[in-house]
Amino acid sequence: MFPRNAWYVACTPGEITNGPLGRQICGEPMVFYRDGSGAVAALEDYCPHRGAPLSLGRVCEGQLVCGYHGLEMGCDGKTVAMPGQRVRGFPEIRSYPVVERHGFVWVWPGNPALADAAVGIPDLTWARDPEWSFGGGLFRIACGYQLMIDNLMDLTHETYVHSTSIGQKEIDETPCTTRTEGDEVITSRFMNGIEPPPFWKMALRMNGLPDDQLVDRWQICHFSPPSHVLIEVGVALAGQGGHGAPKDVKVSSIVVDFITPETDTSIHYFWGMARHFKPDDAALTAQIREGQGKIFAEDREMLERQQLNLLHWPERKLLMLNIDSGGLQARRIIGRLIAAERDAATAAV
Amino acid sequence: MFPRNAWYVACTPGEITNGPLGRQICGEPMVFYRDGSGAVAALEDYCPHRGAPLSLGRVCEGQLVCGYHGLEMGCDGKTVAMPGQRVRGFPEIRSYPVVERHGFVWVWPGNPALADAAVGIPDLTWARDPEWSFGGGLFRIACGYQLMIDNLMDLTHETYVHSTSIGQKEIDETPCTTRTEGDEVITSRFMNGIEPPPFWKMALRMNGLPDDQLVDRWQICHFSPPSHVLIEVGVALAGQGGHGAPKDVKVSSIVVDFITPETDTSIHYFWGMARHFKPDDAALTAQIREGQGKIFAEDREMLERQQLNLLHWPERKLLMLNIDSGGLQARRIIGRLIAAERDAATAAV
Amino acid sequence: MFPRNAWYVACTPGEITNGPLGRQICGEPMVFYRDGSGAVAALEDYCPHRGAPLSLGRVCEGQLVCGYHGLEMGCDGKTVAMPGQRVRGFPEIRSYPVVERHGFVWVWPGNPALADAAVGIPDLTWARDPEWSFGGGLFRIACGYQLMIDNLMDLTHETYVHSTSIGQKEIDETPCTTRTEGDEVITSRFMNGIEPPPFWKMALRMNGLPDDQLVDRWQICHFSPPSHVLIEVGVALAGQGGHGAPKDVKVSSIVVDFITPETDTSIHYFWGMARHFKPDDAALTAQIREGQGKIFAEDREMLERQQLNLLHWPERKLLMLNIDSGGLQARRIIGRLIAAERDAATAAV
Repeated sequence: MFPRNAWYVACTPGEITNGPLGRQICGEPMVFYRDGSGAVAALEDYCPHRGAPLSLGRVCEGQLVCGYHGLEMGCDGKTVAMPGQRVRGFPEIRSYPVVERHGFVWVWPGNPALADAAVGIPDLTWARDPEWSFGGGLFRIACGYQLMIDNLMDLTHETYVHSTSIGQKEIDETPCTTRTEGDEVITSRFMNGIEPPPFWKMALRMNGLPDDQLVDRWQICHFSPPSHVLIEVGVALAGQGGHGAPKDVKVSSIVVDFITPETDTSIHYFWGMARHFKPDDAALTAQIREGQGKIFAEDREMLERQQLNLLHWPERKLLMLNIDSGGLQARRIIGRLIAAERDAATAAV
Repeated sequence: MFPRNAWYVACTPGEITNGPLGRQICGEPMVFYRDGSGAVAALEDYCPHRGAPLSLGRVCEGQLVCGYHGLEMGCDGKTVAMPGQRVRGFPEIRSYPVVERHGFVWVWPGNPALADAAVGIPDLTWARDPEWSFGGGLFRIACGYQLMIDNLMDLTHETYVHSTSIGQKEIDETPCTTRTEGDEVITSRFMNGIEPPPFWKMALRMNGLPDDQLVDRWQICHFSPPSHVLIEVGVALAGQGGHGAPKDVKVSSIVVDFITPETDTSIHYFWGMARHFKPDDAALTAQIREGQGKIFAEDREMLERQQLNLLHWPERKLLMLNIDSGGLQARRIIGRLIAAERDAATAAV
Repeated sequence: MFPRNAWYVACTPGEITNGPLGRQICGEPMVFYRDGSGAVAALEDYCPHRGAPLSLGRVCEGQLVCGYHGLEMGCDGKTVAMPGQRVRGFPEIRSYPVVERHGFVWVWPGNPALADAAVGIPDLTWARDPEWSFGGGLFRIACGYQLMIDNLMDLTHETYVHSTSIGQKEIDETPCTTRTEGDEVITSRFMNGIEPPPFWKMALRMNGLPDDQLVDRWQICHFSPPSHVLIEVGVALAGQGGHGAPKDVKVSSIVVDFITPETDTSIHYFWGMARHFKPDDAALTAQIREGQGKIFAEDREMLERQQLNLLHWPERKLLMLNIDSGGLQARRIIGRLIAAERDAATAAV
């Protein structure tokens, strides 16, 4: 169960450079490619001729050509041509609203009439700000998307799962506060006068700041539907104002997490970090990406085994503690959206 | 769903040289071996003692001996002996009619009373003609057998799936004609005055014919039940009569495709080529087999992914275009045979 | 279906030396670890907070700490503490009676009120006798536990499955006798005046006895519920009394088989050999373990394929010959225990 009338990250532009890409999203096999104008198109990954996956074909002068018998498919889901055939009566396949923005391709699996590119795609200001730089990756994880949201909205897990990199005891010891603003959930934790963990020592040094002093550290997790989590993270030299400190005594980043359901129990997890320092240092981008990839891989086994446990004991309820309130409030919003879609579908019938 | 009262290729003789072979055919686990006289026998792969697969045993003086506790099974499905036991009351297992012919072992999974080796095994005259030579192989493919028949009865896919070897644009551009003669379906395509593709250039050279001239090319696909497809293929120097041209200006082969259902969604695919040139050139046989293996491997991903798509969208109907008429008529014949078997079974009850 | 009110081997002590161990037993995911006193504890492998498997955590000052968010679990299934939380109201998880004895960890998956460490754990006298030495291993096998009991209670399979090591024709030719004593089943076979097979020739040599003389060989299989099989094996120089011969003319061992159901169709198979000669020869222990591991691996394919056959033909009944009487009587006892548990459960409702 997922909201369908929503923008999900489908892929990165680099994944459709050399031909079509097949990917299952919200349970639907889709194919992504660039049409003749260079715009991204998204279709069912199904040739109306014999059911072959169009993603095994190629793009030829902007048309997606089926790799089995040469059917040419238009980006509206209508067959354009096929050698030796009249195609007017061919059944259409679904096309999906799709937008390329902020370095990602966004797809709308639900009712196309409701898709509005001006609403629902997060405004990633850092993606167009030259003072920022982004690096990231993609994991497939065999867990439901809500388990991943829970994970990211409760960072106390860092103390245990990521004890050697970004975890530290103070995360666990400092209460978080959670609030909901419209459809957004914000969980904040401020740890003042603490020792910076290894990642932040590195970041301080790279910005010409001392790494042997106490810092004020913050983590501000922003959930927005359907399943995006952006986390403001950073440290400032202690006592200078923390999150609000002047730029020259702090270092900050945004942990980027776009979680796209593949099925009910698996996700495409687009992760990355947008950093507000040394934006032109490509080696640093690569280094951070490698480190972050290792950290997020630590979550994978935990999430997949947690999912197996939940399938084994489907009747058991999860505890909802204060640390879980971010995930809980996100679940409430998601549940409300799913219910609204169901009600609208019922009303339409 | 497959016809059961039919001869299917079970294996090649080489597969039962060193002991029994276990193979599931039409959903039934079977064991194949040679009895004391050297004749092939086929039984359920099930020891009546404790259910062990007999194919894990060995053949001892013509008896199949279970590898678990030594039960000796006769080729009629009756237990012959077991150490320390009276076996008269042991339950019988099924034996299957089986014939070795034309370099293949043929099995009849249905009603043994209806099995007639004189009817239904294709007469492969090339298999006993010293002017011909055969080489082939075996793939297991996770697709239903009818998808493979479709594939072979519509060779326009060569233009797309096999563009670097046997495919060429003219296949796609030349209409085919399809007719049914009794239970046989024949789809023919004649392409006159075209450039020979790489495989046929090689074949022309090997026969002392020029490879830089236009040719007349033909493809004549013969389907016969339950699931055999034999394809006459060849080229003649242009304007000399094509398929009917004199022997010294043409080269020809037969593409051999015996498709044996393993389950509803998987097959044993026995493929090969019988060629009517250089029959004694073992190196050429090996070279063609390697090339053909690569070409048929190109179909595998397409067929397996097509099968997954059809399972994902079971309610969707495939289009039936003129190029699909060979497969369509084959499906009609298969459907009629299955219905007849069902009716006979109902009548018997 | 397995008896639940019974002691099963869960693991060896070495498996919980470096942290918790997750293992599914009788269909239940469990975690095993040592508490602060060094005693073994067994719990559901499920954190009551969010369902993470506790076996991915670590043991900290005797408490099992969840690796996800730091919940500290007590060995009674009650949460001890969690950073920043009041845990009094947390739901309990199941704890399992568990005993470390004879070099194994034993767990009781059923009603804890019925668990009595004084009843039902086999008394392995050799495990505390310095004249004996033990070596063994663990396999996971995809077959039901009763198939493995059948295997071990009918050693005629050695003639076929293990023909190159411990099998010999005389096993097959010599009838066995089977009797039930309470809940124990004993199947005995005595082969007098035979040539010793390779394993026993080696054992004779290692004990300074001739390996070129005829011997009296014995195999006495002891089944006890729920699924333990201990097999007295040995040879004595022929005519000296066989199993009862004086110690200086015989060599003997006990083949140890503890079979723990993982699911209905898979087992954890703890195998080994306790030998009554050269107990201090560690190299010999390693050598025997390696040889025995190879022998038991020969059973694995047979058992797994037999299981697949039984799943394919669920309606077929296995034959019950005289050689199967050990397994048959074991099945009767197991069936009686399962029925008694079911009746007790019904009565309780």
